Amino acid sequence: MPAVSSKGARMPESPIRKLVPFAEMAYKQKKTVYHLNIGQPDIKSPKIAMDAVAHHSLEILAYTRSEGSEPYREKIADYYKRNNIMVAAKDIVVTTGGSEALLFAMGTIADQGDEIIIPEPFYANYNGFATASGVTIVPVISKIENNFALPPISEFEKLITPKTKAILICNPGNPTGYLYSREELETLAAIVKKHDLFLIADEVYREFTYDGLKHVSILELEGMAENGIIIDSVSKRYSMCGARIGCFVSKNATVIQTALKFAQARLSPPTFAQIASEAALNTPQSYFDNVIEEYKERRDTLVKLLEEIPGVQVGHPKGAFYCIAQLPIKDSDAFAQWLLEVFDVDGETIMVAPAAGFYSSEGVGKNQIRIAYVLEKDSLIKAVNILKAALLEYQE
Amino acid sequence: MPAVSSKGARMPESPIRKLVPFAEMAYKQKKTVYHLNIGQPDIKSPKIAMDAVAHHSLEILAYTRSEGSEPYREKIADYYKRNNIMVAAKDIVVTTGGSEALLFAMGTIADQGDEIIIPEPFYANYNGFATASGVTIVPVISKIENNFALPPISEFEKLITPKTKAILICNPGNPTGYLYSREELETLAAIVKKHDLFLIADEVYREFTYDGLKHVSILELEGMAENGIIIDSVSKRYSMCGARIGCFVSKNATVIQTALKFAQARLSPPTFAQIASEAALNTPQSYFDNVIEEYKERRDTLVKLLEEIPGVQVGHPKGAFYCIAQLPIKDSDAFAQWLLEVFDVDGETIMVAPAAGFYSSEGVGKNQIRIAYVLEKDSLIKAVNILKAALLEYQE
Ligand SMILES: Cc1ncc(COP(=O)(O)O)c(C=O)c1O
Ligand SMILES: Cc1ncc(COP(=O)(O)O)c(C=O)c1O
Repeated sequence: MPAVSSKGARMPESPIRKLVPFAEMAYKQKKTVYHLNIGQPDIKSPKIAMDAVAHHSLEILAYTRSEGSEPYREKIADYYKRNNIMVAAKDIVVTTGGSEALLFAMGTIADQGDEIIIPEPFYANYNGFATASGVTIVPVISKIENNFALPPISEFEKLITPKTKAILICNPGNPTGYLYSREELETLAAIVKKHDLFLIADEVYREFTYDGLKHVSILELEGMAENGIIIDSVSKRYSMCGARIGCFVSKNATVIQTALKFAQARLSPPTFAQIASEAALNTPQSYFDNVIEEYKERRDTLVKLLEEIPGVQVGHPKGAFYCIAQLPIKDSDAFAQWLLEVFDVDGETIMVAPAAGFYSSEGVGKNQIRIAYVLEKDSLIKAVNILKAALLEYQE
Repeated sequence: MPAVSSKGARMPESPIRKLVPFAEMAYKQKKTVYHLNIGQPDIKSPKIAMDAVAHHSLEILAYTRSEGSEPYREKIADYYKRNNIMVAAKDIVVTTGGSEALLFAMGTIADQGDEIIIPEPFYANYNGFATASGVTIVPVISKIENNFALPPISEFEKLITPKTKAILICNPGNPTGYLYSREELETLAAIVKKHDLFLIADEVYREFTYDGLKHVSILELEGMAENGIIIDSVSKRYSMCGARIGCFVSKNATVIQTALKFAQARLSPPTFAQIASEAALNTPQSYFDNVIEEYKERRDTLVKLLEEIPGVQVGHPKGAFYCIAQLPIKDSDAFAQWLLEVFDVDGETIMVAPAAGFYSSEGVGKNQIRIAYVLEKDSLIKAVNILKAALLEYQE
């Protein structure tokens, strides 16, 4: 019997995959499960986008250009200009989600065995794309005690080797909600320029910032044209995760030409989803104002309630819709399983994402969980109360 | 300035990419260009599928499961059963086009430097996926003189090394239109079993067979459960290339679990397109009867006219909608460019795909082109007449 590749064997499972059978058991037991574990917003997609697809008049569902349809790319460039990111259609390759943009980025800049430095904790699927691409992730640790601020520049420089090809950041961050300041970004820009590296910024949560803070893109900085790559997506921006549309953006022409070759091999991003995504660009600002207000309220509620629980420490999110909570337990994998398998409060329980999957350093984050605030406030309050009760009852 | 990866530099361009500027020039000169170069059918997509999307009632465009929506996978399994391929939903991972299924297949079975044997000429993008995956393609030559029949088993065995992980076939073949007989498939099955390899069959053109011949799938053969992987797609079957839906099929549970990890990393295949593809499974047989009748007529017309041109040799396609034509010229790249740049008959010309891009052996196929019969018969006749006139006039 032929064996799978060692790369395939090493591909990580999603951090919550092990919990799925226990969630299914909980459903069978008729428990209500509040899902704090997912990145799928409960917010409605813009009607204008959903209607554009309903009103399609295509008779042949044809491929678009590999780099995405021309009018869509022109409109994305306009969107960026409105956001102080001065790029043109030629600097953009439309991808099948931010996911594919990440895969193209790794293939474009790194060979087998090359290294990419990533502040940790980070979006768990970076591990999967790195394994698939033969790239080694070198984590630089950011700590809940410092609210996940970047470590000093010297920490980065210590990690740079001849194999280092890039620094990858997620801004605002999943799973931390961390929002980089302009100064931190300038620091990173200086490092990558000094060492001739790429700076890849996953900015899929760009719109979701709170407390009057504004997101700064790496392509707003001076002198990042050769070094900067943006990863983007409509998934969270318009609550259109199922579209599978994102993009890869760089002002470095060789980088774009190279990413385009990866895009050509897979022919085309999805056509219906480009129709939706193009229409979504006309979403009125009021939609975002409402969504951001909604997320902000949820965040405030969530963080306040979590901090009231004895022994719980929370990283204060300034963006995106996640936070990391450190719990007075040893092993959040076992705890998350117990929540589904054993525990309930009046037939209700919660599903959380154990945080170890967001770290590549062995053994780190084992007493942490990631909470996504993609539930309405009332459900969120119930969910945190369940967590509180669970922590009282849980015996390790 | 940081450099792109050597993998990125090595990624092949699409065989027609170099011609695109010349096609654009031809448009500017107001020439009519008959496109014989593309794999985008001109056939209408099933109305039932396009309507299903128009009638969607989604308010949130959410991710589906990474392996594809459950009802869709159940229905694909039914489709396979109707085609004598006895698989269940659990054996299927829905992918973003056959393209992604190919990428998952290479990642699942091969590590950096591993080898996959592919009869040549082959679908050009196998080169791209192989480069992206760090896999080496080892071509086994099939010849236009033998109508692209498989070379004897001994030719395969000569090429097998400790690094060989799979044989990959395309059946029916792009670019040859070759249809494998059951005996040939049994032979391949015997080789892979003897040498503990995978047999990957790209069956995206399954429905398109002519002359009363029936497609045989590798998963119809005895004893292929551990070794067989099918690559599939709705792109050509339903003329829905822009959907970006395909699937990866295997009865080997470890293989499916591994492919699923690649699928989880990228979260979900496109949601609207799964709605279309699920509905497309209800397409009546009459649709296929008409489409196949149409392609058959075109093929007959095309092959007959091509064979009437002095010095032209044609591989007789039994399936799909391509053929390879060998021309009395030395360099089809230069010829294809000249057709766009210089030549016309009353303001009309043709665009063809130079065949060298379908070979990985250096220098092979340089006097061949691939012709796709995705034009209506009248246009096809005009196009072949233009080719005939061009060959008379062309001076190398
Ligand atoms: C930080 C980050 N990047 C990228 C993605 C990929 O999303 P998509 O492929 O849906 O655009 C996600 C999804 O959760 C994410 O959280
Ligand atoms: C042989 C073959 N395999 C796979 C594909 C990939 O198609 P898609 O990704 O649209 O399913 C194509 C497209 O032309 C093809 O010809």
